[in-house]
Amino acid sequence: MITSQTKLRVRYAETDKMGYVYYGDYAQYFEVGRVEALRELGWSYREMEESGIILPVLEFSVRYHKPAFYDDLITIKTQIKETPSTRIKFHHEIYNEKGKKLTTGIVTLVFINMKTGKPCGAPKDMVKAIAGN
Amino acid sequence: MITSQTKLRVRYAETDKMGYVYYGDYAQYFEVGRVEALRELGWSYREMEESGIILPVLEFSVRYHKPAFYDDLITIKTQIKETPSTRIKFHHEIYNEKGKKLTTGIVTLVFINMKTGKPCGAPKDMVKAIAGN
Amino acid sequence: MITSQTKLRVRYAETDKMGYVYYGDYAQYFEVGRVEALRELGWSYREMEESGIILPVLEFSVRYHKPAFYDDLITIKTQIKETPSTRIKFHHEIYNEKGKKLTTGIVTLVFINMKTGKPCGAPKDMVKAIAGN
Amino acid sequence: MITSQTKLRVRYAETDKMGYVYYGDYAQYFEVGRVEALRELGWSYREMEESGIILPVLEFSVRYHKPAFYDDLITIKTQIKETPSTRIKFHHEIYNEKGKKLTTGIVTLVFINMKTGKPCGAPKDMVKAIAGN
Repeated sequence: MITSQTKLRVRYAETDKMGYVYYGDYAQYFEVGRVEALRELGWSYREMEESGIILPVLEFSVRYHKPAFYDDLITIKTQIKETPSTRIKFHHEIYNEKGKKLTTGIVTLVFINMKTGKPCGAPKDMVKAIAGN
Repeated sequence: MITSQTKLRVRYAETDKMGYVYYGDYAQYFEVGRVEALRELGWSYREMEESGIILPVLEFSVRYHKPAFYDDLITIKTQIKETPSTRIKFHHEIYNEKGKKLTTGIVTLVFINMKTGKPCGAPKDMVKAIAGN
Repeated sequence: MITSQTKLRVRYAETDKMGYVYYGDYAQYFEVGRVEALRELGWSYREMEESGIILPVLEFSVRYHKPAFYDDLITIKTQIKETPSTRIKFHHEIYNEKGKKLTTGIVTLVFINMKTGKPCGAPKDMVKAIAGN
Repeated sequence: MITSQTKLRVRYAETDKMGYVYYGDYAQYFEVGRVEALRELGWSYREMEESGIILPVLEFSVRYHKPAFYDDLITIKTQIKETPSTRIKFHHEIYNEKGKKLTTGIVTLVFINMKTGKPCGAPKDMVKAIAGN
């Protein structure tokens, strides 16, 4: 199992008129979380795309416990709990500076071969890197 | 039960480098769907906020069946299947011009009294308007 | 000279914690304005891209006179005042429902041949369509 | 004169179907640049708002020299060249990892007293902090 943490600061653009981060913008935070989790494993999402594999999202669910506010320095905790097959599932939790859990999210993506447009397995090295941890 | 349909056109801004609509931008499409569903019932979300009730999102889940592409004229179908209490749940489906279902989403929001910061019931008139259909 | 008008409604996602539309989101409104102006002329931006011409933005300037607010039904007025060459310039004005001018913007884009990556002239038919008006 | 530099990584969400960062998303990058420039001076934009001053954007202009791409680690260079009065002007330049200048932008904001809704001067301490450099 892989666990990774990354921090980012809430932008003004991401707030809405309630003063909360807009519910749809957490998708971007989770994106940052999973890209950095893969980078820590030695995987560049950009290079994977350049090699002909894309990774569109299949399912996304999120539970909002508490709002995030402007300028909050949030921590995105990302976990991979299962060995990826044709799919890969990321478990995310977002915390504020006081350590309060704000959001829980799960994102499932599917490995697609760009040439064929069909699902393909996760790169073998990625499977090894994740299974080996 | 309430059913409402609204159309919108995919913006260039909403596409990503795969050429698909970015997975987080569907949150905005669902927002448009539920606001227009309430408007058809005679409810203005803006006026509800001005009267002191806000409606943050509690849960959000989405399943991506097929991608939406730039300039697609999509149809957002929105349903309210249950009488709202302290919460209201919207069921959304998005279709492209060929009638293919692209996305299925469920968004649950909670009625909050702005003064107290506590959950409050849905406005009685809204409950009646939805239950009466 | 071409003049076109299109309407759209401000999304909650586009507001910020001041309750105003975020200053960067006007870029999307202007995008909608120019795409619809071209569509009225019989031009599909999507088809132009499919034919191998892309149109990245070279310069963008905007002046904010008054804020747009959530749920405002705004009118985007778009003008092409000069015959396009390797570039095309759009003049935009945004008005609220009371007819107050909210924003003035100018966007200059450049026609690029996707294969060569070099600037190419505007499609001849587009030049004719604009010059002929 | 104040000069500040901050780095951020381009998100997938910020790319469009050309594979470039969408032209409107630079507004967010410039926002990050100016907030971090003020923070280096000891100023929190959030605290300024909490004290009753908001800072909406009056004018924004940007020139796109070269595109930024997905996963680029960009540097945002922000300068304040003039002592702020009722307005403050930020000069921004964005560079990629190879040191190529991608974008130049200028953003002018106006200090507004939230209670009166009228322009007010920049906080005296901010004027001193900037003039003193």
